[in-house]
Amino acid sequence: MVELSRPIKFEEVDAANIVFFARYLNYAHEAMEHFFGGLPGGYAGLIVGRRIGFPAVHAEVKFSAPVRFGDGLRIEIGVDKLGNRSVVFRYRMYRTSDGTLAADVSHTVVVSDLAAVRSCEMPSDVRALLQAHVTGS
Amino acid sequence: MVELSRPIKFEEVDAANIVFFARYLNYAHEAMEHFFGGLPGGYAGLIVGRRIGFPAVHAEVKFSAPVRFGDGLRIEIGVDKLGNRSVVFRYRMYRTSDGTLAADVSHTVVVSDLAAVRSCEMPSDVRALLQAHVTGS
Amino acid sequence: MVELSRPIKFEEVDAANIVFFARYLNYAHEAMEHFFGGLPGGYAGLIVGRRIGFPAVHAEVKFSAPVRFGDGLRIEIGVDKLGNRSVVFRYRMYRTSDGTLAADVSHTVVVSDLAAVRSCEMPSDVRALLQAHVTGS
Amino acid sequence: MVELSRPIKFEEVDAANIVFFARYLNYAHEAMEHFFGGLPGGYAGLIVGRRIGFPAVHAEVKFSAPVRFGDGLRIEIGVDKLGNRSVVFRYRMYRTSDGTLAADVSHTVVVSDLAAVRSCEMPSDVRALLQAHVTGS
Repeated sequence: MVELSRPIKFEEVDAANIVFFARYLNYAHEAMEHFFGGLPGGYAGLIVGRRIGFPAVHAEVKFSAPVRFGDGLRIEIGVDKLGNRSVVFRYRMYRTSDGTLAADVSHTVVVSDLAAVRSCEMPSDVRALLQAHVTGS
Repeated sequence: MVELSRPIKFEEVDAANIVFFARYLNYAHEAMEHFFGGLPGGYAGLIVGRRIGFPAVHAEVKFSAPVRFGDGLRIEIGVDKLGNRSVVFRYRMYRTSDGTLAADVSHTVVVSDLAAVRSCEMPSDVRALLQAHVTGS
Repeated sequence: MVELSRPIKFEEVDAANIVFFARYLNYAHEAMEHFFGGLPGGYAGLIVGRRIGFPAVHAEVKFSAPVRFGDGLRIEIGVDKLGNRSVVFRYRMYRTSDGTLAADVSHTVVVSDLAAVRSCEMPSDVRALLQAHVTGS
Repeated sequence: MVELSRPIKFEEVDAANIVFFARYLNYAHEAMEHFFGGLPGGYAGLIVGRRIGFPAVHAEVKFSAPVRFGDGLRIEIGVDKLGNRSVVFRYRMYRTSDGTLAADVSHTVVVSDLAAVRSCEMPSDVRALLQAHVTGS
């Protein structure tokens, strides 16, 4: 499991004064970018250098508690399922203040050749990193 | 069914040059705000005037085709399920250029008293508007 | 002068419950995209089709009144200065509710060949559109 | 001087594949929030706990070099001018890759009582922190 902790930013709330619901997918992607920091060159190295991307085919968020400005999120990043060309990431997002689960995000991506714009084999270093974080049944 | 058409904005794509996946939840909310334009005072009237809100408890997106800058989205907004205190909105988002389904979003909200910060009865005008757009078998 | 009116969106405020200050540059760009709707293919046609862009070299915002959710902005878009390869756009943003000036934005862009990544001559149809909206003393 | 380094995120570029110009004001605010980390409770403690805010009255950005995904920004945060009730922050943003100045941002805020919605005296700990980072003549 990889972790990322981040404060809520001043601009991330909505007119009901809680974190805007769409932001949790932004946080999920931020967490995925952080996760790939485990490879040399990181996520940007994959995208820009190797032209390998991870477009989403499915995303699901269960919201269980609101989060306000002044609080933060501790995000646990794992891999729920590792396929031949796809990955199901799982992000459990807990409020920093009290440890309450705020959002549980599932995010399915397909490993893609950005130049050819189609799915591709998963490079072995990518697979190894993901494999190391498969959270079990 | 209510519809909303909008162009993709210059800033809405990501470094892979397609609409960033989290944006579809922003579009979903934009579509919901548009939907409540069917009430006097609209969505803002509910939030600011009547202090009634619709926090999400669940959101799911199925991505089926990428969308690029220069294209747009035609969003069909319906109600999949109308409960006592909850609503499942459904947004089918089609590319303007070719009519391809790009994203299919399900969005479950709970009608809430923003002052008391808890769920509440659905006002009758809200229910009537939602009822008029219940899709489905 | 070209005008654009838009409601404030639920997600556009900050934790002080007013429109987040950076948003005014997003609105400025939205207004510029709207302005180029005066050309066939619009702004996207320039960027995607003709590979001509307008990167900013300078932007300045004077904030004179806060704007809240439930309100809107009426944006007057003009051209303060038209150079050989540069344009100074001017956006006066008024609150819809009471007509108060909320923000006054100056935005200097350089007409650029996006393929060659350098400034270029202004196409004649672009110049004609801009010329038609030079405001000025 | 206070510093903040941050990578460019996947979603922060535009359809011309460079960091979207409005983002620099988001970065400026992020940097200001980081700056106030020098006080107990940080920026959020001021806003949420003490109800003291810093609404902008002026912002100016000089853009001198584009920044792409895969790069980052090193932001030098200083105080250009410290008034009785106002502060001019200055953010010099350098590309991580080559140290080139990408954007130079000036940001004038007024210390405000968020409950009374008007300017107020600067608390002494806020003044002391700002004073310590006044950059010279």
